[in-house]
This record gives sequence, structure tokens and C-alpha cells, in this order.
Amino acid sequence: MPSDPILDTLTLDDVRAAAARIEGRVLRTPVLHRVVGGAELLCKAESLQPTGAFKLRGAFSLMTALPRDTPGVVAHSSGNHAQAVAWAARELGLPAVIVMPDDAPAVKRACTDALGAEIITVGPDSDERAQRAEELAQERDLVPVPPYDHLLIAAGQGTAALELVEEAGPLQRFYAPVSGGGLMAGCAAVVAALCPDAEIIGVEPEDGDDTRRSLIAGERLAVPPPRTIADGLRVRRPGALTFPILQEHVARIEVVTDEELLSAMGWALVQLRLVLEPSGAASLAVALRESANHARPSHDVEVPRWGVLLSGGNVDPSLLARTIASPAS
Amino acid sequence: MPSDPILDTLTLDDVRAAAARIEGRVLRTPVLHRVVGGAELLCKAESLQPTGAFKLRGAFSLMTALPRDTPGVVAHSSGNHAQAVAWAARELGLPAVIVMPDDAPAVKRACTDALGAEIITVGPDSDERAQRAEELAQERDLVPVPPYDHLLIAAGQGTAALELVEEAGPLQRFYAPVSGGGLMAGCAAVVAALCPDAEIIGVEPEDGDDTRRSLIAGERLAVPPPRTIADGLRVRRPGALTFPILQEHVARIEVVTDEELLSAMGWALVQLRLVLEPSGAASLAVALRESANHARPSHDVEVPRWGVLLSGGNVDPSLLARTIASPAS
Repeated sequence: MPSDPILDTLTLDDVRAAAARIEGRVLRTPVLHRVVGGAELLCKAESLQPTGAFKLRGAFSLMTALPRDTPGVVAHSSGNHAQAVAWAARELGLPAVIVMPDDAPAVKRACTDALGAEIITVGPDSDERAQRAEELAQERDLVPVPPYDHLLIAAGQGTAALELVEEAGPLQRFYAPVSGGGLMAGCAAVVAALCPDAEIIGVEPEDGDDTRRSLIAGERLAVPPPRTIADGLRVRRPGALTFPILQEHVARIEVVTDEELLSAMGWALVQLRLVLEPSGAASLAVALRESANHARPSHDVEVPRWGVLLSGGNVDPSLLARTIASPAS
Repeated sequence: MPSDPILDTLTLDDVRAAAARIEGRVLRTPVLHRVVGGAELLCKAESLQPTGAFKLRGAFSLMTALPRDTPGVVAHSSGNHAQAVAWAARELGLPAVIVMPDDAPAVKRACTDALGAEIITVGPDSDERAQRAEELAQERDLVPVPPYDHLLIAAGQGTAALELVEEAGPLQRFYAPVSGGGLMAGCAAVVAALCPDAEIIGVEPEDGDDTRRSLIAGERLAVPPPRTIADGLRVRRPGALTFPILQEHVARIEVVTDEELLSAMGWALVQLRLVLEPSGAASLAVALRESANHARPSHDVEVPRWGVLLSGGNVDPSLLARTIASPAS
């Protein structure tokens, strides 16, 4: 089927190879089943990873593929990716340098520090961060670990979908959040291969819909800095390597408002007994909206099974408290 | 070793047999690892079961052992046990009658009703509830499913510890909450058999320490109705069948205050990203207290591994909100 060589860059075999490399290093997260409206939601709880997000899968996937004599790694991030790289480096005995903005939350800095990473602080501009990381890679011969735009990272993130399909069987739909596209690229490669009839649906915040616009335009477009509460989904442009994979597999992108994210977080607290961060509840918000509108099948037809990737649970307690005030349930 | 025949009533083989009967019917819940103070806590998240508590294990264990022509089951409960029996009955295609007090929370009644169980309401007195259930069993030839004092129930609950030890390996300590003793009896039988050097520690609320007093006295004693916020731990007297098993295996019982329960719930929200109910956080509260006081081993000694059973997550949202205001972390 694929004739364009770019489309061949991420296959089910790549994800299986990543799964073999990271086995025993990440949590095999549970799949929580809930029938809601006209569908059964199969929720993959990546929020339960030790660092609270799926990012650990990609970090281990890339870092376990490095030569033994690698002097160390460098990453730039203000969030879940920094913690994942620091965690994986500690486990693998590799030195790690993390470039963080000086306005990063103190708690995230403290977590990364506690994992033994060297932290280098720069200004709040993300370009400055990327440039400093590149300089460090050159100066100290460190291997850069990018947050999403690398096929080994995407293959690692795809192991979440591989576990989901292996455990739950065929899906009719699959929902995952889209930021730089690493998670969706890896997962889409798996779902497209194992459930060829499944509809693959990406979710973005309303004011950070760069991938939605880009897929419609057929080329990578940038949006202004998003202000969504989903801090994990504030990327302004799809990844160069991930975008063609999304073009191949993603049927549509749906957008969510901050209100819907808070409502889905409240639903997850009560119905799944899980703490999710706004980004982590994005796919759930759309799945809940669509299952509520989905006609319940008649008795002799099986309820359709929709995979829902819950990507993370690192949320500020005060924001979590707001979701309890008005749970959606 | 065991010479008293009563001590032979629950063995590792009984729990293994229960595990085989219930396989695929309950969630294999994840074990979340956290190093705290001088110990590594291995937290078994039973709060993620579909009904939000370990009770499903015991209900399936007993109900899958019934003859095929069983006309139905009857249980009396105002809480997690009612939902577990209703859930298991629906899955197994058995009619279920649940006797509930007329002051049961509307939400718990609605959940049990939604699972298709027949609900019969009586006054708030628990003796009246038990008597009505017994009458129904006689009148309609229904099999009673008791909440804890039955060896098939205890064997089912023990499958949680079996999964924990199978997955995590040997433990040096094991913490679980104690109410009627079904969970602890099943788990203690497993831990004592597979980790003979482990210290088995039960946890009770400060004003519901019937098992602590009974173990010290060497006989089953009753306490006045406990007022703890841990509504799952308000049983006033140890079970007749479970008590001798606890006498054999439990090293000590520790008690917790309501404040400590709320604090542990807040810790679980932030550090584990899990919603726990007060009863479900009881073992964690003691494990956190004891690991904080436990000297960190020197570098060439392994950190001790303590199993912690998190029993449930069905909590009123307003109570959960109180834990966010002052998380322990």
C-alpha cells in the first residue's frame, strides 16, 4: 500500500522493537472499561506511569538504542518530557542535562533535580532553549533527546497503543491527543496495522489546532501561542517527521474547550478514580461527547469499542480542585 | 507447621483456585512503586476495579463456585460489597437481591440499581438487614453472599496479594486494612506462604480497633459503633472464620486517625495520581508513617520492599476536595 518512502518510516515492527527494548522499564498500564452512551470506552491509563505521563516510553525507546559508550543525553523541556528523560537516564546510568526555562514551575524543577539530572536555566523563550540544548550537545558530545520529532521517540510512544490492542482486541475507533505528534504517530502506526477498519481521531485544544489546520491544508502550518489550560498541548506546529505519518493515518482532528477538559477531568476522578491533567483528559473529553451522541446498538449488535489514550496526570492541585466542584457525572 | 485444623481452612492453594476461577473477570490492577523514606512501597491499586474496590474478587470467587442451577444470590450491604455482588451477578447471569438500609446514599443505591439488582429497603439497623437477607434466602432459595465471613470470599480477596507477590517478588512487609477480616485473611495466607519472613501488618481506624483489641485478648471482642470517616472499616467485631487466620499470621495492628487518612488520600492524589476513599488509604497512611521513620539502608543494602494494599476509591467528591486543600506531599 505505501508507495511514498516517507510513509514507510514508522511501522508496526518499529513499535514492536521499541516494546522489546523498554519491557520491564515502564509500567504496563491498566485498561479501564466503561460503557458510556452508545460505546464502550477502553481507557489506557498512562497517567499511572512513574513520572505521570506516557513520555517515559519514548525516552526509554531512544535511550536504550544508544551505544554503550554514549557520554550522556541532553533535552529541553519545561514539563513531562524533562522528567521522563531524567528518569530514564538515571535508570540507564547515563548523565542527563536538562535545559529549562527560568519560569518553569518550582515543583517540576525540583522533580527533575531529584532525579539527578543537571539543570541549566535559560530565558522563557523556547527557541533560546532549543539553541542552548544544541550548543550543549556539540560542546559535551551529548545525544539530544527531542520531545517528539524522532522516529525512535514516536515508536516508543506507540507501545501504549500496542499494549491496548494486544489486551483489549480490535477497536472501532482510537482517540489520542496531538501535540507535536509523536504519541499519535506511534499509536496510529499500530492501530492502522492491527485494526485496519478503525477510525483514528486526534484531539487538540480549540486555540492550539495546528495539526487540524495543517491536515486540512496538506502542509505544516503554525498557530499563535495557544493559551489553553492543556499545557502539554501548546506546541505551535506539527513535527516534520511525525506529520506525514499523521497525514497517512488520522481520519480527523476534533477540538476541545478548557471547560470540556475540566469536565472530563471531573468525570475521570469520579468514574475512573484517576487524576488526569488537562492534556491527559483531552481524548476522553471528545470520546465522552461522541459516545453520548452515538446511538446505542440494538441487542444483537455488539457495542462498539473505542480506545481512549489518557496521556498524563501531572496537574496542579488547585486546578484539580476546580474539577471537583462541578464533576460532569 | 499448622497443627490446629482451623488454621488449615485457608491455604495458598485455595487462593490459587480462586484466582483461576475469577481470571479475566476482574482487573489485574497495577502495582505502583514509590521509594519513600527508607522503604520502597509497592502499592496495589484495587481502587481501579470496575466497581472501585477489591470486593469484586470475593464476590466472583464465591459466585463462580456455585452450581449452575443456582436460582440467585442475596446480600446485605450499604456499600462496596453490594455493588460487587450486583456486578458479578450481572456478569454471571444470576438474579441478585440486595438488602440496603433506607439511609444508604442515593448514589450507591442508584449504582446497584443500574447493575440490574433487585433492591429491598429496610431500616438503618444492620441486624434488621441481616435478618431480612436471611429470610429472603429461605423464602426464595437464594444463596447468601456474605461480605467477609466465608472462606471462598476470603480466598477471592487474597488474589490481590497473589498478583502483587507474583509481579513484585518477595516482600519484607505487607500492609492491608482490616474490617471484618476477609481481605486480610486471604492476603495473609498468600503472603505468609510466599514470603515467610514478611511482617504482616493490619490497619484499623483509631475508634474501630476491634481486631487490635481481639488479637491482644486472644478472643473476638466488639467495640461501640465507630464514627471514623473510613466507612468501609466500621465493622464492630472480627469475623468468626477470618479471626483465627488473622491470629495465625498478623504480626500487629496499627491504628490511624481521620486526619492521617485525609493526608494519605492527598498524597495518593499527587504522588500516585489515584483517587482513594478513606478506607482505601488506611494501609498507605501507616506505610507512609513507618517508612518516614525507617532508617535508609546504606548503599550496599537493598531498600526494603513493603506491599501496600489500596483497597478502594469510592469517595464522596466533597470529602476528596478536603484532601486537596492540604496534601501531605
